[in-house]
Amino acid sequence: MSNQSETLFIIIFGATGDLTYRKLAPALYSLNIQGSIPERFYIVGVGRKNLTDEEFRARMREGIKLFSYRSEIRDSSIEELLEHFLYIKSDMVSHEGYTDLKSLIKKKEDESGGAINCIYYLATPPDLFSVIPFRLHEAGLTSEDKGYIRFVFEKPFGYEYASCRKLNEDLHRILSEKQIYRIDHYLGKETVQNILVMRFSNGLFEPLWNRNYIHHIQITSAESIGVENRGGYYDSAGALRDMVQNHLLQMVGLTAMEPPSSIHPDAIRNEVLKVFQSLQPLKEEEVPEYVIRGQYTASKVMGQCIPAYRQEPGVNPASRTETYVAMKFFINNWRWGGVPFFIRTGKRLPTRVTEIVVNFKPTPHFLFHVDDMNKAINQLIIRIQPDEGIVLKFGIKKPGSGFNVENVSMDFHYSDLLKVRVPEAYERLLGDVIMGDSTLFARDDIVETAWKFLEPVQKAWAENRDIKIYGYPAGTWGPEEAGKIIGDGLEWRYPCKNLADDGTFCEL
Amino acid sequence: MSNQSETLFIIIFGATGDLTYRKLAPALYSLNIQGSIPERFYIVGVGRKNLTDEEFRARMREGIKLFSYRSEIRDSSIEELLEHFLYIKSDMVSHEGYTDLKSLIKKKEDESGGAINCIYYLATPPDLFSVIPFRLHEAGLTSEDKGYIRFVFEKPFGYEYASCRKLNEDLHRILSEKQIYRIDHYLGKETVQNILVMRFSNGLFEPLWNRNYIHHIQITSAESIGVENRGGYYDSAGALRDMVQNHLLQMVGLTAMEPPSSIHPDAIRNEVLKVFQSLQPLKEEEVPEYVIRGQYTASKVMGQCIPAYRQEPGVNPASRTETYVAMKFFINNWRWGGVPFFIRTGKRLPTRVTEIVVNFKPTPHFLFHVDDMNKAINQLIIRIQPDEGIVLKFGIKKPGSGFNVENVSMDFHYSDLLKVRVPEAYERLLGDVIMGDSTLFARDDIVETAWKFLEPVQKAWAENRDIKIYGYPAGTWGPEEAGKIIGDGLEWRYPCKNLADDGTFCEL
Repeated sequence: MSNQSETLFIIIFGATGDLTYRKLAPALYSLNIQGSIPERFYIVGVGRKNLTDEEFRARMREGIKLFSYRSEIRDSSIEELLEHFLYIKSDMVSHEGYTDLKSLIKKKEDESGGAINCIYYLATPPDLFSVIPFRLHEAGLTSEDKGYIRFVFEKPFGYEYASCRKLNEDLHRILSEKQIYRIDHYLGKETVQNILVMRFSNGLFEPLWNRNYIHHIQITSAESIGVENRGGYYDSAGALRDMVQNHLLQMVGLTAMEPPSSIHPDAIRNEVLKVFQSLQPLKEEEVPEYVIRGQYTASKVMGQCIPAYRQEPGVNPASRTETYVAMKFFINNWRWGGVPFFIRTGKRLPTRVTEIVVNFKPTPHFLFHVDDMNKAINQLIIRIQPDEGIVLKFGIKKPGSGFNVENVSMDFHYSDLLKVRVPEAYERLLGDVIMGDSTLFARDDIVETAWKFLEPVQKAWAENRDIKIYGYPAGTWGPEEAGKIIGDGLEWRYPCKNLADDGTFCEL
Repeated sequence: MSNQSETLFIIIFGATGDLTYRKLAPALYSLNIQGSIPERFYIVGVGRKNLTDEEFRARMREGIKLFSYRSEIRDSSIEELLEHFLYIKSDMVSHEGYTDLKSLIKKKEDESGGAINCIYYLATPPDLFSVIPFRLHEAGLTSEDKGYIRFVFEKPFGYEYASCRKLNEDLHRILSEKQIYRIDHYLGKETVQNILVMRFSNGLFEPLWNRNYIHHIQITSAESIGVENRGGYYDSAGALRDMVQNHLLQMVGLTAMEPPSSIHPDAIRNEVLKVFQSLQPLKEEEVPEYVIRGQYTASKVMGQCIPAYRQEPGVNPASRTETYVAMKFFINNWRWGGVPFFIRTGKRLPTRVTEIVVNFKPTPHFLFHVDDMNKAINQLIIRIQPDEGIVLKFGIKKPGSGFNVENVSMDFHYSDLLKVRVPEAYERLLGDVIMGDSTLFARDDIVETAWKFLEPVQKAWAENRDIKIYGYPAGTWGPEEAGKIIGDGLEWRYPCKNLADDGTFCEL
């Protein structure tokens, strides 16, 4: 059966939500103009709202025009794409709509006579992850008789170790692991993938990448926004589930992994798994020392009053959910034994930035005068966003007599590659699902191990009310206590200063 | 005896020459406005021309105004300095003038009653190096009874191993080694000194600086000018003596040396000496393979006719003097065993540039596709001049699907340090002589060892007329044969393209 007679269905559950509007439709548009989608395809939106095909298309048209690469927007190409869009109303929980979907697919199948491939994209709240696949299964829509069936799951995948494991077990009853694509959109970012290329294509970096030369590693993912209109979801999740379990630990995996035997998806994911398996388990009683949680309080930032987290819409006014986490841990293997890793993430920090900071050990002897340990440490900064690129901080001779050291930096920005179009994360990831490349998706054992690692933290926080949630004024770099976990007279790298007016809190 | 009553004499032999005009007078001006010259001082010019003090001062005034930092030029400061300038006529070979000098010093000595320190600066042709010190000695002007006596010698120090050794032996009969400062103005450059700081203050670079991670090292010192008005001198010297024996080998020394135990001058120079002592001796029969010499031929560069070397004024029309040398050699020690070093220098090359290029070994396994070995090699480029700074070339992920590597570079320029004034080489070196710091001057054993290393080359070239002198058109990167000595499919780094119009030679 030739490719020409293949038909691809991309069925998006939760198609009326923000993700489809802002990310998926623009990604599909880009993929289509690049010719990365097979010739015969349909994009079926499934959602709770009562929309006609035309109404659904109008919304997608708007999303594509607002969120695609400006230079690539052409009305004719958008209209051409929109003809492939269809809409089915369903609450997704009952059997509503599944029969419609089945008839639709059957009809197209009869028309083409060729293979039928289906990608089910679950852009829904996570409680539907264990429902939709079974409804599809019951409707006879998960059989691979006519072509491949792939499922894409948005985050969070599970709520803690037990629920993640249960979800995997349930899904594996009707699907094989290779049909499951767990999205971590951080992995779709060029600069995250570049971690592998940086490490494994450069004779300069890889020899240094171990306990002999690295003092410690910091990974920061800071957001300047608050919870926006997601207060309800966020208050039940918190920073640990929303950011640490997936994005931050995935970056740890890529930063710390051994060279894989090849770039085959499972070769890479096996190495990430090994890193997670080597994470030194935290004891519940160690949690207060190793993990600092915080929650933003009201403050005045550049004259403007910012509400506290507990004042945000949808948030419990007595909420104990963390909007900030800083964490120290070790990886117990030959490469990293004794090297501390520090990760932190938070909302309402002074800026939006994600970066990996590799701190190299100082030289074994100071030939030249050094007055501050922070200055004796070279840093390689891999900037994931924004202004993607690399910065290297090192010492040179301070001009003038004698030998004095001055720290300087040199940098590379992805934006310097003028001619190059950097694809959006979702474009890359959706393209990979279509090609069947699972390299950038989290495998069952990897997500489970990540949850397992965080279990003592979740338990300690749930069970021990004495563990503090530190307040930090919105617009600052989080609780002071987080600064102390680095130790050795060293500091977190602060890409910018605190924004909140000095200690001035707002009365709202 | 306090500093207040000290008097410093700086006596410049060859004071009517270009070096005094362009370099020494401006350097003394800078040092004086910085307060780096003791309060009581005299600068005595000695030269063959018949000048009054006023005429000498007029010339120095012009040099200072033309060649000092523009922002530092103030008429009042210049006039204040010029009052310290005196002139004595002497052919420097006979006893003429030495008595005048002695009376002058005696007079000032009687006036002050304090210590008298003398720096004799020999900015003369090298044949006077073995004359002037003895005339001074005969005149009783080298005794350290009243203060220190220091001698500064310009290059070239010796003509080959034997004459260098003889000169050292002669000088040591009347002077101790610590009184002798052999100028290599390259060592006065900030970026040359920065080699030490780069290597020994960064936990990032030093671990890589050895045979395990470095594939080879290239050192280039290219000049775009020809022999200018120095044809007579140059034709008797050639590139090997003029550049290789001093500047290039000193850069090899700093690049390859072990960490010194301290930054004490002799600690550093001991390590440079060890490098030179470890140079793998060349056999005369190896010379044609390891050392490529060239001489520039006439060409048309951007429409302008450039004469051949043999057509330059003062040059023998049948000259076999090399204006280009490329050389391969090894350093037989634990750090560098098996790592080839390549150095090259030449006149009439496409641009003026001096740089050290450290080529790192490729990764042990190519995880990502590599189509050209040159692209698999990371480079650290230490730019000595112009545009002093550091460039790092490495691979990143080419944006888009898959994992493809693209080579990019990041750089640091000294000029980015906006507030910093980078001192001129001669300013630094003269300041060091005044302070008695000999770190940046070549010691007797170091110059002798450098000459010894080059002896087989000089012998082979002198004795074997079959060893070719390759022609290269002015404005190109030297003879093609020099490109072949790198091997392994690798190339010299070419900071810019050939300038000569494709193979078009000029009829002059």
